Amino acid sequence: MTRSTLHVGVIGTGMIGQDHIRRLTQVVSGAAVVAVTDANEVVAKEVAAGLANATVHATGRALIDDPAVQAVIVTSWGPTHEEYVLAAIAAGKPVFCEKPLATTQEACLRIIEAEAAHGSRLVQVGFMRRYDAAYRALKQIIDSGDIGAPLVYYSGHRNPEVPASYTKDMAIVDTAVHDFDVVRWLLGEELVGIRVLAAKPNSLGGDLRDPLLMIAETTSGVLVNVETSVNIRYGYDIRGEVVGESGTAALADRGPVQVRRAGRVGVSVPVDWRERFIAAFDTEFQEWIDTVSGGLALAGPSSWDGYAAQAVCDAGVQALNGGERVAIDLVEKPALYSS
Amino acid sequence: MTRSTLHVGVIGTGMIGQDHIRRLTQVVSGAAVVAVTDANEVVAKEVAAGLANATVHATGRALIDDPAVQAVIVTSWGPTHEEYVLAAIAAGKPVFCEKPLATTQEACLRIIEAEAAHGSRLVQVGFMRRYDAAYRALKQIIDSGDIGAPLVYYSGHRNPEVPASYTKDMAIVDTAVHDFDVVRWLLGEELVGIRVLAAKPNSLGGDLRDPLLMIAETTSGVLVNVETSVNIRYGYDIRGEVVGESGTAALADRGPVQVRRAGRVGVSVPVDWRERFIAAFDTEFQEWIDTVSGGLALAGPSSWDGYAAQAVCDAGVQALNGGERVAIDLVEKPALYSS
Amino acid sequence: MTRSTLHVGVIGTGMIGQDHIRRLTQVVSGAAVVAVTDANEVVAKEVAAGLANATVHATGRALIDDPAVQAVIVTSWGPTHEEYVLAAIAAGKPVFCEKPLATTQEACLRIIEAEAAHGSRLVQVGFMRRYDAAYRALKQIIDSGDIGAPLVYYSGHRNPEVPASYTKDMAIVDTAVHDFDVVRWLLGEELVGIRVLAAKPNSLGGDLRDPLLMIAETTSGVLVNVETSVNIRYGYDIRGEVVGESGTAALADRGPVQVRRAGRVGVSVPVDWRERFIAAFDTEFQEWIDTVSGGLALAGPSSWDGYAAQAVCDAGVQALNGGERVAIDLVEKPALYSS
Amino acid sequence: MTRSTLHVGVIGTGMIGQDHIRRLTQVVSGAAVVAVTDANEVVAKEVAAGLANATVHATGRALIDDPAVQAVIVTSWGPTHEEYVLAAIAAGKPVFCEKPLATTQEACLRIIEAEAAHGSRLVQVGFMRRYDAAYRALKQIIDSGDIGAPLVYYSGHRNPEVPASYTKDMAIVDTAVHDFDVVRWLLGEELVGIRVLAAKPNSLGGDLRDPLLMIAETTSGVLVNVETSVNIRYGYDIRGEVVGESGTAALADRGPVQVRRAGRVGVSVPVDWRERFIAAFDTEFQEWIDTVSGGLALAGPSSWDGYAAQAVCDAGVQALNGGERVAIDLVEKPALYSS
Repeated sequence: MTRSTLHVGVIGTGMIGQDHIRRLTQVVSGAAVVAVTDANEVVAKEVAAGLANATVHATGRALIDDPAVQAVIVTSWGPTHEEYVLAAIAAGKPVFCEKPLATTQEACLRIIEAEAAHGSRLVQVGFMRRYDAAYRALKQIIDSGDIGAPLVYYSGHRNPEVPASYTKDMAIVDTAVHDFDVVRWLLGEELVGIRVLAAKPNSLGGDLRDPLLMIAETTSGVLVNVETSVNIRYGYDIRGEVVGESGTAALADRGPVQVRRAGRVGVSVPVDWRERFIAAFDTEFQEWIDTVSGGLALAGPSSWDGYAAQAVCDAGVQALNGGERVAIDLVEKPALYSS
Repeated sequence: MTRSTLHVGVIGTGMIGQDHIRRLTQVVSGAAVVAVTDANEVVAKEVAAGLANATVHATGRALIDDPAVQAVIVTSWGPTHEEYVLAAIAAGKPVFCEKPLATTQEACLRIIEAEAAHGSRLVQVGFMRRYDAAYRALKQIIDSGDIGAPLVYYSGHRNPEVPASYTKDMAIVDTAVHDFDVVRWLLGEELVGIRVLAAKPNSLGGDLRDPLLMIAETTSGVLVNVETSVNIRYGYDIRGEVVGESGTAALADRGPVQVRRAGRVGVSVPVDWRERFIAAFDTEFQEWIDTVSGGLALAGPSSWDGYAAQAVCDAGVQALNGGERVAIDLVEKPALYSS
Repeated sequence: MTRSTLHVGVIGTGMIGQDHIRRLTQVVSGAAVVAVTDANEVVAKEVAAGLANATVHATGRALIDDPAVQAVIVTSWGPTHEEYVLAAIAAGKPVFCEKPLATTQEACLRIIEAEAAHGSRLVQVGFMRRYDAAYRALKQIIDSGDIGAPLVYYSGHRNPEVPASYTKDMAIVDTAVHDFDVVRWLLGEELVGIRVLAAKPNSLGGDLRDPLLMIAETTSGVLVNVETSVNIRYGYDIRGEVVGESGTAALADRGPVQVRRAGRVGVSVPVDWRERFIAAFDTEFQEWIDTVSGGLALAGPSSWDGYAAQAVCDAGVQALNGGERVAIDLVEKPALYSS
Repeated sequence: MTRSTLHVGVIGTGMIGQDHIRRLTQVVSGAAVVAVTDANEVVAKEVAAGLANATVHATGRALIDDPAVQAVIVTSWGPTHEEYVLAAIAAGKPVFCEKPLATTQEACLRIIEAEAAHGSRLVQVGFMRRYDAAYRALKQIIDSGDIGAPLVYYSGHRNPEVPASYTKDMAIVDTAVHDFDVVRWLLGEELVGIRVLAAKPNSLGGDLRDPLLMIAETTSGVLVNVETSVNIRYGYDIRGEVVGESGTAALADRGPVQVRRAGRVGVSVPVDWRERFIAAFDTEFQEWIDTVSGGLALAGPSSWDGYAAQAVCDAGVQALNGGERVAIDLVEKPALYSS
């Protein structure tokens, strides 16, 4: 049972970074945050002041090069991810990078090349749905064969509301990207084409094209239907159903208490992503810490997964604007990511 | 409360015709079957022998012209429907016609013209889902505004298996036609375009393209997603969910008993369409009898509904074979069907 | 399929009587109401005026003796039931009697003796739950052995509110009596003892002792737990769960539409007994008509069932007032009711 | 966010002790196990060998007196609990004691007296259900008043099977004790009397009296119905429903995936207590560590709760053997436990 504490450096101490630091120090076991940095140095110093013994670095590069830092967490602004991930690879240090891995397919491919050159996986991407207990149970049922081969997958991504800064493309690159990743993982297949259809707009959603229906296909021909409804008010509701040859399996409603009141019986729907996925974030980090500390091979979402998700998003945005099916062409998959 | 018995003649005494005769004589109230006919006269005579006092006619025309027949039920082979419905209109008699109203849009339009010339509705088409208690409750919730304006509708038509005689097009013209009608009724809108995508084929379904996903749009832009899975083994499962601006409403699982056994808790799924829709058939006939006997205006599925469903089916078959979106262009709607 | 119409006379044309007349004339098949009578002759005449061809009789006795009346329905005031049921037996006519069969065990026994002397069953008691599709499915599962031998049964009888005229004893003799009958039927056993415990009173229920928990035992030792909550506001909710040796089976929530709205997902609860049991009443009458018209042996709730329910109610009232277990001692069961 | 690591000593390194050590070292945050002891010294040494830096003590007393031990966890054999808890109090160290607090009411009272003399709470008892997310949500709904004042509570404690060593009384003192504690906590009231009724025995349960129904009352008159079914095979199913004045609230079925297969739709039931309550154990320890490390007042189950649960168990065992209602008389509650 013995093991040493993993010394982590965190690049980016904004809202998400702070939440991960809280998680690392107060929730999960086996890690300590020993270094932080942020574009806003004042914030970085405030965060460090709340930690037992953490150095504030002027830059992400400096943090990565700090010998006290054994592993790196990147939660800075998306466009900076490539630089820090590449630097961590160059330093031979494990790096956990929040999504997106990088903001272009080309940047993702540069990371893949660097990691392949390094010869073993160092990068994990923050697709936390793979750590959600319900998705894991869903995958287990698919893999058991109990419902036969998957033929259709429905993914519903429903959000009560989005801020004014949310743009049309974000329904794909910020929202549906989670659905794309999780379906690739659930089915063990790549997506090869996508159509995007916009429904009559939700009047609660301003100028957005919302909801969207995206119909993608996998390599073997499974149809994947992703709905994004980002102004649906009633709750944060992540739905998923795989239709197999002889049955179906779906994420269940899991409100903890069934109330009978005022003519109705039912359970609650999560109010936001925190309520729905907080345990998945905890598990994601605990497993990453255990893997890295134990010197084990990384099994979480890889650079390849980051690249493939980006490719689907790019095709989705193109399909949204053009209206017809867009093919998703991936480069050949390096052997490093084959297992 | 008083009323007289409606004297009905039934054209077509095959399986469905016999079931309707059973319903008219043993289940619902206020009707008597006084005349029958069938292409197979032997069967017609056998059926008549089981009735209290029914004449066997040589032809559908003769039955329609029988003065003892106050209303006509057509359950014969599809291609014969047009002739009998037109004859009933010519005779000024109410006629209940099982779907399809006719096998071509042109034939449907001839019926519409004849009925419009008659000046009042005489024809009702057998889209029984509109009489199902769950669909009615769903419509009530949509109409209440409780979930806001409908934006997306999912319709799942799952059948445990189909006979060897079931052909590729039947997934659309025999199966999805019910979904097309019910969504037109639920939303109160026409469908204006349709795409058909075939998933990886179900290996339990032989050479069929099964399942199919059909994505249609309504006049106002609601996206309609129809799944047909006709070899899915697990049960006869009719699903429907309307996604509104601020909530959703879906047909609920309604198995009568929740069993906790062998590690699971759940309810049964209907085994076939009979179990799922037998009460809807009963209601459909009781309301038709009450309306016709009471001299009230018909409110059930009309000739226009029969025509519009046929138009969607035609476009669906074309889209299935061609692969791209097919527009659905309807003629102008006669005033008779406006209300 | 042929059969003649059953000519029915109805004693008691109050609210329940009128509802049954509506059912017989407008809903079910194969019956006609040919005679009525009521303590209030004005009402009886008004009801008859709405019927095609019904005689108004001055007394129940006269109605029973009317040669045009083939079968009798008793829906008059409870204390009059014994007289009419005995008269119908004396006349050798089938009689459907709303519960209670009679208001004392002694009266029930007099009916049993008369019927036994007649030599075949003529009496059916209106315990309509036995005709409810969900209870029937529950019984089927119990009988299948899928959950092992029953050991405990929970029965929840929840009513939104009761009128001011509702007295303390009525929770047992009017409300729980349905639970007593249905559990006897589900388990195929008699109840042999009962305890009644009153919870802290519902402040919405005035001076009543509400809710009550009644714990009874069956012959073989199954524990039966009946809850009556007659002012619970949220809906009319009839619950039942049998705990077997290796699993349980319970009446499911069956609201037709699952709504996701305002932070919750769920279905509706019936608003009143009409919504919950209207189909059971229809089935009850259709099966009674079919049985009587077909000259078949009655299979519905018998005089014995009426007597046994009364005996449980008497013990329940005694236990409510005394506080301790009261034994339920039945007479020996006549062979007529053995099957 | 800064805080130091809590140094814990564990008395009892059997199965439960080892599981808690795993939890403290690999799951939760902020604790280190620095000392262990066990009646079986070989096991204690093996366990210590797996830890980073843990002393093995010859006795529990020695462990408690070790200056390196800041807080004590007692998971040894029940009859030894009193001694260790009293010693921890004497040493002024926080002590987490697995249930039972002690095996007699008298022993519990001695602990209460010692703790009261100490002047502040040091003892927490391992009633982990209070840390379960579903029970917490249930309590929140009760406290919100949404369903009105509680009137009846149903608690179902269903276990797939028990070992041969499980005796008749254990259904009460080992199994139902959890239900007793959680209902006291949910309702914020003491239980004042109890009846125990044995159903027809489950033939899968050997000579046990299983299932049992226990009907208790609270101070204010809420009826509490506890079912223990400890050989029910189908799963580990913890059920709870509070019936309020205007609604009810119940622990929901929470299987993560809804499967439609082979004629049924449903979710899984937990296989054992680990699956059902593992997260509650984690939360229980995390909150205890945070409270003790933070120098905050203990809010978890107290010595009083341990005593009260014992009193209910004692009355339950007496009622099981005697058959009638047994009163539960508690001593006056010391002010220390009033908040």
